[in-house]
Amino acid sequence: MGLIVQKYGGSSVANTERILNVAGRVADAYKEGHSVVVVVSAQGDTTDDLIVKANEINPNASRREMDMLLSTGEQISVALLSMAVERLGCPVISLTGYQAGIMSDSNYGNARIKNIDTERIFRELDRKNIVVVAGFQGWNRFDDITTLGRGGSDTTAVALAAALKADLCEIYTDVDGVFTADPRIVKNAGKLDDISYDEMLELASLGANVLHNRSIEMAKKYNVNLVVRSSLNKSPGTIVKEVGNVEKILVRGVARDNNIARVAVIGVEDKPGIAFRLFSLLAKEKISVDLIIQSIGRDTTKDISFTVAKGDLTRTLEVINRNIGLIGAKDVNYSDKYSKVSIVGAGMVNNPGVAAMMFEALYDADINIHMITTSEIKISVLVDIQDAERAVAAVHDKFNLGEIGSR
Amino acid sequence: MGLIVQKYGGSSVANTERILNVAGRVADAYKEGHSVVVVVSAQGDTTDDLIVKANEINPNASRREMDMLLSTGEQISVALLSMAVERLGCPVISLTGYQAGIMSDSNYGNARIKNIDTERIFRELDRKNIVVVAGFQGWNRFDDITTLGRGGSDTTAVALAAALKADLCEIYTDVDGVFTADPRIVKNAGKLDDISYDEMLELASLGANVLHNRSIEMAKKYNVNLVVRSSLNKSPGTIVKEVGNVEKILVRGVARDNNIARVAVIGVEDKPGIAFRLFSLLAKEKISVDLIIQSIGRDTTKDISFTVAKGDLTRTLEVINRNIGLIGAKDVNYSDKYSKVSIVGAGMVNNPGVAAMMFEALYDADINIHMITTSEIKISVLVDIQDAERAVAAVHDKFNLGEIGSR
Repeated sequence: MGLIVQKYGGSSVANTERILNVAGRVADAYKEGHSVVVVVSAQGDTTDDLIVKANEINPNASRREMDMLLSTGEQISVALLSMAVERLGCPVISLTGYQAGIMSDSNYGNARIKNIDTERIFRELDRKNIVVVAGFQGWNRFDDITTLGRGGSDTTAVALAAALKADLCEIYTDVDGVFTADPRIVKNAGKLDDISYDEMLELASLGANVLHNRSIEMAKKYNVNLVVRSSLNKSPGTIVKEVGNVEKILVRGVARDNNIARVAVIGVEDKPGIAFRLFSLLAKEKISVDLIIQSIGRDTTKDISFTVAKGDLTRTLEVINRNIGLIGAKDVNYSDKYSKVSIVGAGMVNNPGVAAMMFEALYDADINIHMITTSEIKISVLVDIQDAERAVAAVHDKFNLGEIGSR
Repeated sequence: MGLIVQKYGGSSVANTERILNVAGRVADAYKEGHSVVVVVSAQGDTTDDLIVKANEINPNASRREMDMLLSTGEQISVALLSMAVERLGCPVISLTGYQAGIMSDSNYGNARIKNIDTERIFRELDRKNIVVVAGFQGWNRFDDITTLGRGGSDTTAVALAAALKADLCEIYTDVDGVFTADPRIVKNAGKLDDISYDEMLELASLGANVLHNRSIEMAKKYNVNLVVRSSLNKSPGTIVKEVGNVEKILVRGVARDNNIARVAVIGVEDKPGIAFRLFSLLAKEKISVDLIIQSIGRDTTKDISFTVAKGDLTRTLEVINRNIGLIGAKDVNYSDKYSKVSIVGAGMVNNPGVAAMMFEALYDADINIHMITTSEIKISVLVDIQDAERAVAAVHDKFNLGEIGSR
């Protein structure tokens, strides 16, 4: 018996049948004696449909008006889910982001939660109401609606769990939890019973698509007990938590990310400040750079390669070409035919043999490696996009991840 | 150059093309130097679609959650219209009912505006913004969303015009203004250049379908300059205003209302208090009664006949049958095969010949009259529903309304 925050994504409330299913789960938790706060996303394709409508009218609509528009998706969901819960005879109330006290900054379209005034939610919980909160939305100091950007409903759920000091934050999705690899690629991918925040962070940023980075960072910061589970069955899911003893932990999962492009800046002068100049130009344009490799100077020049998200490629090339004199480069080239394959595990840093095992697996599978980077808990390699699935499977096998799903 | 409130209904913003058309009209008014506040309804069938969705999930959903749901329709409209206005290069901001300061009571689904905090709207107008306000919605003292019931967007517009002390409140619709009769029934129906609040009130309640009663009552109370005009052309429309000299005014329009049912309570005792008992029972159930006729006692009993809206018929019969002993009636019968035909004109009370002319027109057309009621500015008769259109045409001809559209 405690306070539980449950979050259901857009596919979990996509139609009447699924909404009634979610209402059943919510009511079950309530009847077990818990205080229940539910965060919901917009139904299925609602947000995309609204964006299409907006683009028809004005492709350059202001972000403030886009937020005014898009926030209706979640408002519809909370009302419908509350009606479904009413039907099951449980007391319930829906709240918009504003009503739930979710205050954000004013970066429309990608706002950050600044603080949560929990008074209203606690008042409703005291009245024994189930509280259904619209995800993805906030309210700024100008009394305007904001939206929280990609993965915003996860962020809402974790932020509420932190602010309400909830005992548990359950993230419901359409998979059973976090896997050692994408089950669509690797047949014997195993479900992890638990995973650390840091490992989850690396997997999320590598395209595991289960939880958004911002929500995991927040869960880690406020030590929120997270569990990722399926809304379609009673499987216990994967617990995301601070893991104490990481000595014996090796590789926890393999992930692939096709949404990358590789850019190479060729023949820059081998003198201090060049990399700084290049990457500060990109940072100014809010382009996130991932893998970076700087070749050791052969003559008086060197090459700098890095990866960006595919969607940022055009802007990246524009920025570099506009400043090519400033950077002092001879040429720039790019490719979007690569994929990034990564292994993640909190104990990796203490086990130097891990990288070698990964490279061996790829060599055995005759897969060429274009770039490599490593961090304390992650090793990423760039491979040809058509080799990516084979690479994931080969690495997954090498580390016997099919067997060590749970530790 | 002044402050104008414009209201556009759901059909005026039903699709991208129409939204861009409305944006053009709004921008034109702004470029003429006016301060412009726009009130919009939900697009086309949005509200009905949402109701269908809700009924699928829970046919007995609470009215609070229905309001949470339905208010999204207007929020979508204000965002889209603002984007369209942005595209035309005019500064604009959309506001929900709450943001516009529209405070209501807590009668969810049919709330009344209690007061309007105009601070935000005036601040936006001071910044030279066009202000687009969601119609039909308010905010109550529990920090919850309410909706204003049928015709709610008209009410929003008139209430804003009153609170902002606007110079003009323009109600845009898909007809050119107020006519002497329904142009679909009467070919030579004439558009009225102006009409008094009281006449408009009678016409609205008689099914003229142009403006909702509550908005006209409010316009009258706060002396708001109203004009009803088409969103599809530049026709000047019909001005609704306080008319000074009503001596020479006769009949202004003929209206028909098919949405009625006649109920007769037969053989009640001829003693004081019976009518009071009957109609207070109906009032308790919030059933509005229109025409009432009580027959003169023949023996020791009398009959009471009245009309209600068709949608209230079943409940009316239930109430009466449940209380038939209390009322002391022998029997109750009903018919929904009648139509109410009415003539309206502020000068009628001083011209006793008017009623006779109406009856003569119906007699000449061989149309039987079942019930009659009169007020200071209205005469209504109940006729068979299949005679209603002929009755409207005959009366319209008799009073030469095709010629006297304008006074």
